[in-house]
Amino acid sequence: MRKRYDVAELTAFVHRALEATGVRGEDAGLVATVLVASDVRGIESHGVARLERYYVDRIRDGFIDPRADASVLRETSTTLAIDANNGLGHPVSVRTMRRTIEKAREAGAAFATVCRSNHFGIAGYYAMLALEADCIGIASTNAGRLAAPSDGRELLLGTNPFAYALPAAGGDSFVLDMATTTVALGKLEIAKRLGKPLLPGWAIDAEGRPTIDPDAGLAGALLPLGGFGGDNGGHKGYGLGLLAQILCATLGGGTLVPDMPSRFETLNPAITSHFFGAIRIDAFRDPVEFKRDLATLLHQMRASTPAPGFERVYTAGEPEALRTAEHLRDGIGLDPVVVESLERTAEKLGIDPPLERR
Amino acid sequence: MRKRYDVAELTAFVHRALEATGVRGEDAGLVATVLVASDVRGIESHGVARLERYYVDRIRDGFIDPRADASVLRETSTTLAIDANNGLGHPVSVRTMRRTIEKAREAGAAFATVCRSNHFGIAGYYAMLALEADCIGIASTNAGRLAAPSDGRELLLGTNPFAYALPAAGGDSFVLDMATTTVALGKLEIAKRLGKPLLPGWAIDAEGRPTIDPDAGLAGALLPLGGFGGDNGGHKGYGLGLLAQILCATLGGGTLVPDMPSRFETLNPAITSHFFGAIRIDAFRDPVEFKRDLATLLHQMRASTPAPGFERVYTAGEPEALRTAEHLRDGIGLDPVVVESLERTAEKLGIDPPLERR
Repeated sequence: MRKRYDVAELTAFVHRALEATGVRGEDAGLVATVLVASDVRGIESHGVARLERYYVDRIRDGFIDPRADASVLRETSTTLAIDANNGLGHPVSVRTMRRTIEKAREAGAAFATVCRSNHFGIAGYYAMLALEADCIGIASTNAGRLAAPSDGRELLLGTNPFAYALPAAGGDSFVLDMATTTVALGKLEIAKRLGKPLLPGWAIDAEGRPTIDPDAGLAGALLPLGGFGGDNGGHKGYGLGLLAQILCATLGGGTLVPDMPSRFETLNPAITSHFFGAIRIDAFRDPVEFKRDLATLLHQMRASTPAPGFERVYTAGEPEALRTAEHLRDGIGLDPVVVESLERTAEKLGIDPPLERR
Repeated sequence: MRKRYDVAELTAFVHRALEATGVRGEDAGLVATVLVASDVRGIESHGVARLERYYVDRIRDGFIDPRADASVLRETSTTLAIDANNGLGHPVSVRTMRRTIEKAREAGAAFATVCRSNHFGIAGYYAMLALEADCIGIASTNAGRLAAPSDGRELLLGTNPFAYALPAAGGDSFVLDMATTTVALGKLEIAKRLGKPLLPGWAIDAEGRPTIDPDAGLAGALLPLGGFGGDNGGHKGYGLGLLAQILCATLGGGTLVPDMPSRFETLNPAITSHFFGAIRIDAFRDPVEFKRDLATLLHQMRASTPAPGFERVYTAGEPEALRTAEHLRDGIGLDPVVVESLERTAEKLGIDPPLERR
């Protein structure tokens, strides 16, 4: 049975948990906002479910510096290269994306890299910061190795997502936030739990052969979007995943592939690199016209005939926007495993657990 | 039996064919260079095979203005919005990408849109113009409607490619040039000719059901990268295809989706919009270090263990680079159907056909 929590209650809990580990108040607030935003958008895998293992434990084990200050490596009117100095990923990413948007508002377009950071949550959150500034927002990150090239068998790539956010009229938007693997690792774990086969195109076994056996896939590697080999475009997903690695880590001077941990290794500190961008819409067109035309385009897609078995056609970010409205109204339902983790975290830190919604 | 032609001979032929249709010498030269570059890279579908039907016939039928001058709609130090005024896609795209790179060299990053243009050939050509300037190159275009959303059945998207080019040490590079559909339409036509089934994930029939029948697929629609529905990430390919449409046409003030021709309709003039970008590497890192690290990363991928059935692991753009070396040395072999088309074009225009390599 799921328990429900108000957004404000969960946010306050994450805030006090992080402060109890030594994170400064302002930083703890930023992490809490980004983490709960993931649950609000319905992306449970990247939300408060990660608080204990990804952040609290790693700070307490000395893998993440809770009081790190980011430093600027290079800066121009349109670019920014940041070293997170092994701090939490969210505060440095929010601040860097904000500065990137400010630069784009001044100069028309701006990009930033962040090296030596940690998991930053959902890429879409940062891209979406551009929406209110009438900019196009871009965000990407690399991550621990769990996927193979489409024609390979070694763990060489992370889920390496790209997110793009573009504003439309009436508060509508297009928000594409996609891992460059076909599925996340969680899908294999769910299949294993339910005793169901994987779909072809999700994973290879430890010998590099395509597999639909969850155990074999979990011992092997995820496949890039497009699947095994090139027949269904697996080389494209592989290319996008490697592009994320290059833009985040190679351009940003971050941790390179052989030093990124695979999912079978203990995590090292400061492994993650990010990439952010913003492009000002009115440099190209009147933003009112752009947003009107984008709203029309999104409507055309949604009003088009669905394929058999589908209720209707959605656009990128639309299911998450619908979840957001629902969760802000009704609170967020958390899985018992997640509730346990939050209660255990509260106990570890000697703080109050979050209060269930009445 | 394929006939072989030298690169210079083919280029000169395309040049004189276009001049004979009324295209100015400099523009004809640019089209010839881009078109033959596609064959040189081994992408036969987008090279001289298209000269007759996509360019010569459409100019002669009054669909493309051979002497159009592009005009600037908006310009800042980092952005450029261009109207191609229904001219050929290649000259305006080469010039716009060159100006985008110049702006990025000055300002750090720059982006451009081109509206009311025509087919520009391979997106990768424009992205690759950034390589010598130590910039990251980006190019995209929309195209006539032949694909459906992953959960839809209407023709609402083109192949809408994205290309990214990044320079590595020793003349090496990473060049990802990918349609956002699983495959190109040509793959369905080849399957039909060979009497072979399609692979699942390539196409739907006219009722929107997944199909492996080439005739049914050709009467239906292509699927986005990731295939039908969301199970294999089809919503991601659909999202990327729509993103290309938005960046090219909605941002650039170009032709919007309902007015884009589907592949079952006669082509209208000035339907195509493009998007270009360049980011200066040394704004983030010493480009020598970046290119060294990128070469190392590419080598790590290529030296990794291949999957069973694969000789080795490739990186994006590597097969095309290998073809380029081969074609510059041995000339380009053209399919008899393409040779016939070039000879027919020569006859139509009263010019000499290209001379076969001795």
